[in-house]
Amino acid sequence: MAIGHEVGEKFGLPYLQDLHMDEDLMSKHPVLQVLQTDDLQYDTRSAFTLSINHRQTFTGITDHDRSLTTRRFAELYSEVCESETNGIEALGKEFRTPGHIPVCRESEGGLSSRQGHTELAVGLARLAGVTPVVIGAEMLQPDGDLALPVDEARKWAAERNIPFLTGEELMTALGI
Amino acid sequence: MAIGHEVGEKFGLPYLQDLHMDEDLMSKHPVLQVLQTDDLQYDTRSAFTLSINHRQTFTGITDHDRSLTTRRFAELYSEVCESETNGIEALGKEFRTPGHIPVCRESEGGLSSRQGHTELAVGLARLAGVTPVVIGAEMLQPDGDLALPVDEARKWAAERNIPFLTGEELMTALGI
Repeated sequence: MAIGHEVGEKFGLPYLQDLHMDEDLMSKHPVLQVLQTDDLQYDTRSAFTLSINHRQTFTGITDHDRSLTTRRFAELYSEVCESETNGIEALGKEFRTPGHIPVCRESEGGLSSRQGHTELAVGLARLAGVTPVVIGAEMLQPDGDLALPVDEARKWAAERNIPFLTGEELMTALGI
Repeated sequence: MAIGHEVGEKFGLPYLQDLHMDEDLMSKHPVLQVLQTDDLQYDTRSAFTLSINHRQTFTGITDHDRSLTTRRFAELYSEVCESETNGIEALGKEFRTPGHIPVCRESEGGLSSRQGHTELAVGLARLAGVTPVVIGAEMLQPDGDLALPVDEARKWAAERNIPFLTGEELMTALGI
């Protein structure tokens, strides 16, 4: 699940990379020091924040459970914005960590500062005028081994009348 | 991925719940306090430890990448045990966190202390005499909404000549 920077702020959700690189914590758990993400092949930092489950899920694994977690997260963000409730407290009443929904937080500045899947997904939501909480999925080749090439994804979408956007088109539309 | 208690010990992998409930860390990130897992519907504690990616993966998402991460993790554990290398250092050379493989760590005592999916998966590996590093998957109903009932899973396995074991059979075979 990709969430806007302002959603991460409202709910006080830290980047896992920052959480794990806390000096005190690293001295207590040396494995955090050695597992540092300093060699991402697609970017300089990982977008992951805390994973979550809605407290009313059972395992959190089924589509039913995942749907509850993701839908309520987006709804709760809207509710919190409208009512000016404390976001962190409201989040804790309904959600727990660790969970089965990995969450990625948009970089501050969005697509202007980072052009990752997270920022693209959130950018699309902004363009559509909906809550910046989006489910992203990677399209794989039919045998699942590798990412689907762009041309094949475009063809798949055309066959189903699904709009196909490139990152560049999205950024142009957003005026970036 | 489910890993044996001794694997978690060798690699110094903490339970996320313990990591997140560090007093200093909670005071820096109040959201950790409110997102506490204190209401699991299937157990008293979550088995999650740090998620990982092999450093040679690209996104970490494709089957190819996931296979590299999980296969090398199991191989590395065997290598470290044979060579008496420092497990934590060896792990850090090949892996990073956060990643796209969520890892669950067996409770100390295994099935004698907790009968979760993690302990059952690891228990099966012990019975088979292989490295206690196992991929577990939840079988869903064809529409993906809910967990597949046991009778349907049994039928599915029978149709494909796949051995079907219950947790009770596994525990009996392990003498628990």
